[in-house]
Amino acid sequence: MQITPEILQKLQQIVGETFVFTDQETRNHYGHDETEDYVFPPSVVVKPVNVIEISEILKLANQYKIPVTAIGARTGLSGGALSIRQGIGLSMERFNKILEIDEKNLQVTVEPAVITQVLRESVAEKGLFYPPDPSSQGSCWIGGNVAENAGGARAVKYGVTKDYVLNLEVVLPNGEIIWTGANTLKNSTGYNLTQLMVGSEGTLGIITKIVMKLLPKVNHNVLMLVPFYNATQACEAVSAIFRAGIIPSALEFMERDAIDWALKFIDGLNVQVSDGIQAHLLIEVDGNYPEILMQEAEKIMTVVEQFQIDEILFADTEDQKNAIWKMRRNIAEAVKANSIYKEEDTVVPRYELPKLLQGIKRIGNKYGFKSVCYGHAGDGNLHVNIIKANMTDENWKTEVPKGIREIFELTVSLKGTLSGEHGIGFVQKNYMDIAFSEVHLELMKRIKFVFDPNGILNPGKIFPDC
Amino acid sequence: MQITPEILQKLQQIVGETFVFTDQETRNHYGHDETEDYVFPPSVVVKPVNVIEISEILKLANQYKIPVTAIGARTGLSGGALSIRQGIGLSMERFNKILEIDEKNLQVTVEPAVITQVLRESVAEKGLFYPPDPSSQGSCWIGGNVAENAGGARAVKYGVTKDYVLNLEVVLPNGEIIWTGANTLKNSTGYNLTQLMVGSEGTLGIITKIVMKLLPKVNHNVLMLVPFYNATQACEAVSAIFRAGIIPSALEFMERDAIDWALKFIDGLNVQVSDGIQAHLLIEVDGNYPEILMQEAEKIMTVVEQFQIDEILFADTEDQKNAIWKMRRNIAEAVKANSIYKEEDTVVPRYELPKLLQGIKRIGNKYGFKSVCYGHAGDGNLHVNIIKANMTDENWKTEVPKGIREIFELTVSLKGTLSGEHGIGFVQKNYMDIAFSEVHLELMKRIKFVFDPNGILNPGKIFPDC
Repeated sequence: MQITPEILQKLQQIVGETFVFTDQETRNHYGHDETEDYVFPPSVVVKPVNVIEISEILKLANQYKIPVTAIGARTGLSGGALSIRQGIGLSMERFNKILEIDEKNLQVTVEPAVITQVLRESVAEKGLFYPPDPSSQGSCWIGGNVAENAGGARAVKYGVTKDYVLNLEVVLPNGEIIWTGANTLKNSTGYNLTQLMVGSEGTLGIITKIVMKLLPKVNHNVLMLVPFYNATQACEAVSAIFRAGIIPSALEFMERDAIDWALKFIDGLNVQVSDGIQAHLLIEVDGNYPEILMQEAEKIMTVVEQFQIDEILFADTEDQKNAIWKMRRNIAEAVKANSIYKEEDTVVPRYELPKLLQGIKRIGNKYGFKSVCYGHAGDGNLHVNIIKANMTDENWKTEVPKGIREIFELTVSLKGTLSGEHGIGFVQKNYMDIAFSEVHLELMKRIKFVFDPNGILNPGKIFPDC
Repeated sequence: MQITPEILQKLQQIVGETFVFTDQETRNHYGHDETEDYVFPPSVVVKPVNVIEISEILKLANQYKIPVTAIGARTGLSGGALSIRQGIGLSMERFNKILEIDEKNLQVTVEPAVITQVLRESVAEKGLFYPPDPSSQGSCWIGGNVAENAGGARAVKYGVTKDYVLNLEVVLPNGEIIWTGANTLKNSTGYNLTQLMVGSEGTLGIITKIVMKLLPKVNHNVLMLVPFYNATQACEAVSAIFRAGIIPSALEFMERDAIDWALKFIDGLNVQVSDGIQAHLLIEVDGNYPEILMQEAEKIMTVVEQFQIDEILFADTEDQKNAIWKMRRNIAEAVKANSIYKEEDTVVPRYELPKLLQGIKRIGNKYGFKSVCYGHAGDGNLHVNIIKANMTDENWKTEVPKGIREIFELTVSLKGTLSGEHGIGFVQKNYMDIAFSEVHLELMKRIKFVFDPNGILNPGKIFPDC
């Protein structure tokens, strides 16, 4: 469906002329996210300001069967916000308000375009805690976090985005507006449409308001960086820590290359890595009682000292903690600066991490690619950066997808799946058959059809043949 | 659809003759749960032993459009397991095995007919912790907990059943068998069918295996019982405790009548309640460091002492703790022993509890009924027992439903909803229009239709006009 002058005019009537854009520069700008080097510009970019405007836009799009792709901060890693069928690029940027921090109920009501870190800091000022902290928290938006069910380093103790969403205001493709649930911590009232919306990647409805639960602020933490001579042992240590009765507030794994590249990429970080170190675990415990945290840190030391490790670095100051987290958060950027790459978001039960890591290396050898692995080991969530380096374009195009397929076959055989926190979006959809049977995919597609019979919302995502 | 001799024969071929029952006694036995005095016997009771048998039963039922109602421990309070359209009563009782306690990944794979307390104790023996603890944990089954998204006293800190379900084996009405997700802590891979199944009350598929996450065991707790001279103040104290930065592991509210009746109902409990006490809070904190628990208990004391309270009872021994919990868990039974009653499972944001409680009393006065309120105040989840006492049968039938409707209108106006942990089932379905718009209900019904186009699974539940 072309965007005709008549439709353009109607869009202008809905949101005002100044919020409709058809120039190439704007369309390109809204046509990419952080997924490899893809650019899929929408035919037109519109910037509504309230739920009524979105309702009107969807009614129009539904009538004329025009694709509508919600666009957030464009920090996504699975291409969820790419307008691959053109149509309307629905930028949510004007939905940028924290509507209410409800201190009495420990809840927050927020619009989707609030930056995650801004949300976290705003509630922290009131003594409250919103735990999910994707690495992109300084730029990503909470709406995108909900759409992709984003995680982050603290998920290992505190859960992912879905665990904080209580209720959503959603505009359906026919323009109807619903609240999916209630503002309550418990709810056994009909089907859980809230959790159906979370992680549905903009394919079922447009989220316009989000009610989330909060926790009381946690005041202290201890951070340590443990260098392992053997990467497999580092993975083994992960489940050993839980077996010792400790739930760390972060438990991150970084292969040697990841840390080396990150250290080169950012200035002023004084971390020395000995020869022969294959991987690091970054381990944090948090709580309100410093003396207990020291006891827990000592227990963790007892666990990791059973493996071949180098000297443990304890972060003594806030500056040092920030520097170490900055290093961890910059790995993806550092890899990007080094080489063209593809990032996969594998997830398995945590004890299977060593098998996953070894399998990835074996598959890489078979298909001729290197990989740098790092991620949220406490959740069994390993980000696999496949590096182009000196590979030919031909092999990059033909061999790598075969390797990725084998990696996902491995994750599924280990009772894991394709994505832990990035979503399927555009770039992983052709691997969905590995995780799901025909029957299962058909069930999901029919649910999509219930919400969106004309298939206008974010077409070409999630499902292999769409 | 009648159960013909031909269909009976086919059922016998599938599960074996000894596991098909048509006698009145068996049918009556499986025709009631703990919901008021309802009895809806199925036409036939079948007791399959494995997923293949269930698949065959559903294919048969789907072909002949025979209603199929999954029957668990029949401890439900919303009539979810009642065969209100007769048909096949699918007793899950032979699915009673804990299949694997995976200590390495802190997971358990369990069949639906395992008693919740047995599951909790079995994992505890391995140093692991399954937190959800419905009051009926000694008799209810984990499958029913999943179907109704059951909660319990520890939900306030640890979440409800849904927060522990990672993956489900489900038989669809057409006989197909799927796993809804993966055995991972994080998952952003397609729509979340796992959470769609949780709380769907047997209307979308039959759950045959459940993979749940576990936590490391928590070793210590402190339990206190705080008597309040003013019930509204007791409710206010609930959110004040959270505002002090404490997340108790249980925070239960009991009106005076609830505690009096429970004390009469069970023997040997030495709890003295002073004149003028209107309500109690039962407060527990847990953790691995007793000295910290004492600090938290002191903080809680500081909070509650700002209200008009009598002397706080600290439970010093395990016996005393068990006795207090027994009292709390026996309130429902105690009320039942006193009078015919109806139980509603209201839930609101926790700070709204005082308004809810006052509103319930006001509505009771208007329609001429007494109520006894108690429940999981930390979650804003208040069980309302409406007492028949000396009401005429006529008023019980005509006035009480009006009152219940007003109570639910009140919960929804306070941004709450109809059920926190019991489900809608049979007895609350006619109130669904209060919580949901036509559009919203229609969306849910169409999701039901995707899974169950012939409407064979647990017909007559959840939706008002079904």
